[in-house]
Amino acid sequence: MGNAVSIADAARVLLAANDILILTHRRPDGDTSGCAGALCRGLRALGKAAFVLPNPESTARYEPLVAPFYPESAAYEPKFIVSVDLADLGLFPDNAKIYQERVDLAIDHHRSNPLFAENNIVTPEAGACAETIYDILMAMGVPLTRELAEPLYVAVSTDTGCFRYSNTTPHTHAVAAACLSTGLDGGEWNRMLFETKSRPRFEMERIIFESMEFFEDGKIALAMLYRADIDRTRASMDDLDSIAALPRQIEGVEIGLTITENRDGSAKVSVRTTKEVDASALCRQVGGGGHLRAAGASFDVFADARETMLRICQAVYHG
Amino acid sequence: MGNAVSIADAARVLLAANDILILTHRRPDGDTSGCAGALCRGLRALGKAAFVLPNPESTARYEPLVAPFYPESAAYEPKFIVSVDLADLGLFPDNAKIYQERVDLAIDHHRSNPLFAENNIVTPEAGACAETIYDILMAMGVPLTRELAEPLYVAVSTDTGCFRYSNTTPHTHAVAAACLSTGLDGGEWNRMLFETKSRPRFEMERIIFESMEFFEDGKIALAMLYRADIDRTRASMDDLDSIAALPRQIEGVEIGLTITENRDGSAKVSVRTTKEVDASALCRQVGGGGHLRAAGASFDVFADARETMLRICQAVYHG
Repeated sequence: MGNAVSIADAARVLLAANDILILTHRRPDGDTSGCAGALCRGLRALGKAAFVLPNPESTARYEPLVAPFYPESAAYEPKFIVSVDLADLGLFPDNAKIYQERVDLAIDHHRSNPLFAENNIVTPEAGACAETIYDILMAMGVPLTRELAEPLYVAVSTDTGCFRYSNTTPHTHAVAAACLSTGLDGGEWNRMLFETKSRPRFEMERIIFESMEFFEDGKIALAMLYRADIDRTRASMDDLDSIAALPRQIEGVEIGLTITENRDGSAKVSVRTTKEVDASALCRQVGGGGHLRAAGASFDVFADARETMLRICQAVYHG
Repeated sequence: MGNAVSIADAARVLLAANDILILTHRRPDGDTSGCAGALCRGLRALGKAAFVLPNPESTARYEPLVAPFYPESAAYEPKFIVSVDLADLGLFPDNAKIYQERVDLAIDHHRSNPLFAENNIVTPEAGACAETIYDILMAMGVPLTRELAEPLYVAVSTDTGCFRYSNTTPHTHAVAAACLSTGLDGGEWNRMLFETKSRPRFEMERIIFESMEFFEDGKIALAMLYRADIDRTRASMDDLDSIAALPRQIEGVEIGLTITENRDGSAKVSVRTTKEVDASALCRQVGGGGHLRAAGASFDVFADARETMLRICQAVYHG
């Protein structure tokens, strides 16, 4: 376990570094991708050699944020490794595993981060990890251009549900204000990120809606996603992104459960709750974890997940 | 036509006023209601007598923002009238018309505002009128409490699509940041305002999703709403509101058709289009009409609507 460092420390460490490689997490989302793109652009603005390691699970939606920063050669030998929004060694993409033991700086906002790097800055109060990237970039004296602001804005906006979720803080809005002041068109970005439903995403929603069951007088909503249906829709991880939020969006639902059948027959459980229920406490009972209102767990056997999770969730209402 | 005044002027005029009545616009939304609630609370914090005129079209969602401020007696005789987010004399509710000629201060953000009051502050650059209310309250020295911040936040959030639309500016985010810094739970408000689907609305969506069919390579989406299903969901008009927009939100869909079976066996057709197709032209072919991207028509016999509308819509793609 490494050092916990401050914004100023992180800036100092980065200012002293060169030949930098930035790592994102498995199933990359807008936050990790935007963090990587912004940090890399900022480091280059300071004259440094910096690259983002291509993520094998990168999707069409967020890849444009990082693709300009891929190393030109697979033989690139970095001297300094930074991970962004990477909560745990288990979330390293396969091609990043060779760096697991030598991360120089981890920048993250997940409370559960075990401080796996030599230097670690973990800011659980930040809605998006990109808020901390922004603070570090400013501490390094990087000018906030529109090109730099765009990946930051996308990261902050996607990780807070476009400023809708409770993880949005005054600081989140302050970062967004700074980004918009560069002239970027937030409305256009958000239309692209949030409004249009892809056809596969629609098909996934159709399946979620069809399968939705209610328990405990409507306080628990459960959706089951069978592999055959997922495959039929040709949904990408992007399309699946945030679909787990749907069950909890129904009035009266306090626990929204989504159980997804993985390709290998295991199950991925997503739990979303209102403030009445601690999602991470529910998931910890089966070895999972996460945040207060959004958590997850895994089951080796898909068929086991439903009964076990329902039992755990129903126990909330039966002391 | 009256004077255009500044934030400082508006604050000065209000500081000199007492026995104040605040007017909202017809079909009151979150902005006009939040503006009225916040302004009234702020004026009272300064020791003034201030009230909000009840709006006959007030709805359950926003009425809590203003209801604490209704005059106790219908005989209340105000000495100073302020309108908020009220763009035009034509938008005065019926019970506010008696004040049309004597508005002392109009606070608005619609560029088209004809400056109908004696003093007018119009800020078209503001995403929400509440941003200007916030500026005026701060200029008057009103402390920003959580109670004051809540109606401001609701107003700003609702008028900008929760910070998603292009009318969101750095100032919008700055106001939101100030509001959140009072400790209000923005996530909880937004969940209530934007996320929660009533159970009947969910059931309606489930039916729409189940029945959705695609034609012309996904350019036409058709949803059929049968009366028996509608009745089963107990959906209200509120729940049905905007449901016709769903088919067209799917990527690639240019014509979204919703055909609803009325209680008497007739059909209501709703057509929503992207910019490529004129919805009103399609509906005019069967005696209906409407706007360029949203139009409607009726059929005496529900069973006739589907085939006829599909034929008309498919003809768009076959010369």
